[in-house]
Amino acid sequence: MAPGEHPLEFIFQPRSIAVAGASPERGRSGNEYVRQLQHYGFRGPIYPVHPEATTVEGLPVYRSVLDAPGPVDYVISCVPAAALPQLVDECGRKGVRALHAFTGRFRETGRPEAAALEQEVRRRARRAGLRLIGPNCMGLYVPRQGIGFKYNFPHEPGPVAFLSQSGGNCAELVYRGSLRGLRFSKVISYGNGLDLTESDFLDYLAADPETAVVGAYMEGVQDGRRLLAALQHLAASKPVVVLKGGRTRAGARSVSSHTGSLAGATAVWDVACRQAGAIQVSDLEEMIDLLVAFRFLKPVQGLGVGVVGGGGGRTVQSADDCEAAGLTVVPLPPDVREKLRPLAPAFADWIGNPLDISILAGANVLPEMVKLMGGHPAFDAIIANVGEDWFLDTPESAGRMLTSTLKSYLALGPTQPKPFALVLGTSEGPDEWRWRAIEEAKRQFWEAGLAVFPTIARAARALAQAHTYYRRRAAAP
Amino acid sequence: MAPGEHPLEFIFQPRSIAVAGASPERGRSGNEYVRQLQHYGFRGPIYPVHPEATTVEGLPVYRSVLDAPGPVDYVISCVPAAALPQLVDECGRKGVRALHAFTGRFRETGRPEAAALEQEVRRRARRAGLRLIGPNCMGLYVPRQGIGFKYNFPHEPGPVAFLSQSGGNCAELVYRGSLRGLRFSKVISYGNGLDLTESDFLDYLAADPETAVVGAYMEGVQDGRRLLAALQHLAASKPVVVLKGGRTRAGARSVSSHTGSLAGATAVWDVACRQAGAIQVSDLEEMIDLLVAFRFLKPVQGLGVGVVGGGGGRTVQSADDCEAAGLTVVPLPPDVREKLRPLAPAFADWIGNPLDISILAGANVLPEMVKLMGGHPAFDAIIANVGEDWFLDTPESAGRMLTSTLKSYLALGPTQPKPFALVLGTSEGPDEWRWRAIEEAKRQFWEAGLAVFPTIARAARALAQAHTYYRRRAAAP
Repeated sequence: MAPGEHPLEFIFQPRSIAVAGASPERGRSGNEYVRQLQHYGFRGPIYPVHPEATTVEGLPVYRSVLDAPGPVDYVISCVPAAALPQLVDECGRKGVRALHAFTGRFRETGRPEAAALEQEVRRRARRAGLRLIGPNCMGLYVPRQGIGFKYNFPHEPGPVAFLSQSGGNCAELVYRGSLRGLRFSKVISYGNGLDLTESDFLDYLAADPETAVVGAYMEGVQDGRRLLAALQHLAASKPVVVLKGGRTRAGARSVSSHTGSLAGATAVWDVACRQAGAIQVSDLEEMIDLLVAFRFLKPVQGLGVGVVGGGGGRTVQSADDCEAAGLTVVPLPPDVREKLRPLAPAFADWIGNPLDISILAGANVLPEMVKLMGGHPAFDAIIANVGEDWFLDTPESAGRMLTSTLKSYLALGPTQPKPFALVLGTSEGPDEWRWRAIEEAKRQFWEAGLAVFPTIARAARALAQAHTYYRRRAAAP
Repeated sequence: MAPGEHPLEFIFQPRSIAVAGASPERGRSGNEYVRQLQHYGFRGPIYPVHPEATTVEGLPVYRSVLDAPGPVDYVISCVPAAALPQLVDECGRKGVRALHAFTGRFRETGRPEAAALEQEVRRRARRAGLRLIGPNCMGLYVPRQGIGFKYNFPHEPGPVAFLSQSGGNCAELVYRGSLRGLRFSKVISYGNGLDLTESDFLDYLAADPETAVVGAYMEGVQDGRRLLAALQHLAASKPVVVLKGGRTRAGARSVSSHTGSLAGATAVWDVACRQAGAIQVSDLEEMIDLLVAFRFLKPVQGLGVGVVGGGGGRTVQSADDCEAAGLTVVPLPPDVREKLRPLAPAFADWIGNPLDISILAGANVLPEMVKLMGGHPAFDAIIANVGEDWFLDTPESAGRMLTSTLKSYLALGPTQPKPFALVLGTSEGPDEWRWRAIEEAKRQFWEAGLAVFPTIARAARALAQAHTYYRRRAAAP
């Protein structure tokens, strides 16, 4: 361990990886894990392990982890549950330090013998000095190290970390988050959390210099006091967003059959998160919104919001959504109105906050409005509606209107002194030109470091929630 | 008026249309309205009216509505506000029966002289026996008649009607709704509602044989009692979904500058909608969800729900979202479990509701589970997760997995005796194959008459809200 290095750092920087239960057959997990390491460019040796096969994806196969020709730091297990105890023993003998058990069918099955087998794995791992990720999980996505488990994850790293008892949630969060500019330091799917738990990973991420923002999907918790301490420690320096699975009776039943976890009382979670200064969300979409807010927005220091863009209906909806989310849509201050008067003498008494652009008859006061509100002490954040549905009904208007709107916000956004959130809806629909135009606009926005939200309501909720985080952090002892 | 015909029917079946303030210049409203009529294939004569131009979009131009060579049933006004009173007079002399005033800048500007001009327009229209749509609005989209105002609206008609004080909301609702299979009978953007109001249109839609489901976006109301009666009458026979703009203080301010409406007290609206049996939503997305639910789902008669599809995390989220929305995720009844046992002996004690497909190890009990739950009295509705994010990471898995999932739900869905809702996420993202695969899947689903929702939470809320409607209707005196 290098000086100052976190004791779990070795898990995220393996020099070599063996895949136990590797398979020559495409589509099987034991094949996929080998291919994923190749796909993400893992730089160290990859050792497929299988009792009979000779090659897997062009690599020589070894009969056992013990037969690997060099040291093995990390093992990915795709062997059946019954074979895992022996693999753990062999890892111990080989000097392996970390094992990720994709292998499932343990306590989550509800069968006592499977739960007993899981405990046996834990005992043997302790004895062997081996740390476990899982079982029953997808393991790690660490792009800087060339480790991943789905083909549509970004290759380049970034400052967002996510830990999750569900691998599916990781897949959804990483892919959908990447479309909004999120890039990741470490993503950890840890399933049943038999050895390493949420608290271990949260502690690690608090110390990790590559991580600036953390999301966590948790289904149960083994040590509530430790989790509270870990969340508190982490939230003191980095925003942390928590999605709790199993908040309802039916959800708790599903949690039990998914990762064998005890969901625990929702009220206790709520209090713990509030005390710790973590932000709770109710689904993955909101999780992504918050990670985007913490990643791309300046700290939200108050609830006063200025809104521009979109026509009349969008303006009304914006005002309602912002105030329903707890923001205050500040009436246009007289000094701002007076500064706008020379630019739009005919409309200066009509326009307001939100700024309805359809009443301007072409007078482009939008950039000035953003600057004036952003520079005024009554405003803590600005939301800009791209308002695409109105003008994206033909390729011509898409070219004309989207391009000019895009240009305007790309110029304004990065220079704003206050948090600046954009609202641009989905690219979906059967028209290829429309899909391309919106995808391209989104890419340009996030490449410019701007936070883009799919609806006003979601932008408003993210701003309000982010403000809660910063307020709690400032008030913390 | 044909016997039994509603007194406003003539508005929606004009035999000829004049566009006053027509323009030869592309992009201007006076040009767009002419082109839109051509685009949607309006079958009667179109008379552009302009003091100087000779042709507009290939059509001869007339100096005045009075000069049109044939009778004029309907006029679209793009003239400036100050010219509208004279146009109204001319319409009266010509025998025009309905005028849609795209023309704005009336009471919404907040200027007393503009409000007075609006009243003058109303007086003259009354005198002329002319009914007004607007002013300050986009007017009609009636695909069966070849009338529309955006180029991306479907040409074919359907049973959904929408009325809205905002034209932008119509544009968003029609386009986004069309991507989920909604097709429209009449869409009415009515702006300031100077003459014809929400109550007139709701009364009309209650009687309209082409309309089966109604959505309404309202910012203010001029006669609360009449609106309550109209909503009550409509809701007794057709589902009606209401989005109220201006629910907050800031929203009410925006309502005033948008359509010059008085937003009114939110609590009064809430009570009125509940009394009337209308369903209230909080944004356009939820409006579309409800219109999709009422259009494509069988009536929701209870809150017990069965959920299938997706992996562990999705399963937990499904359970939580359903119960948070007020549905009950029914524990798997013993008789259903026993019927599944022969199909999946190894998993029969493990699986539950929601059904986590990741634990099945390939045993395809999903169709059987849908049928068993759908046929069991404990269940009132089924939600099926397509769960695409997990398997859409490569074109190969998209081809393999999406195709088989699609086939399975296309075969199951239409045969289900209970409401059957699908969850399939957005097609967005930069990969063309992924966009195409999901767009194609959505198209196939809605063409098969299936209701598709973008998230579990939204499907669950729509089911719960639809149930509220059917429950109230059944309980109505």
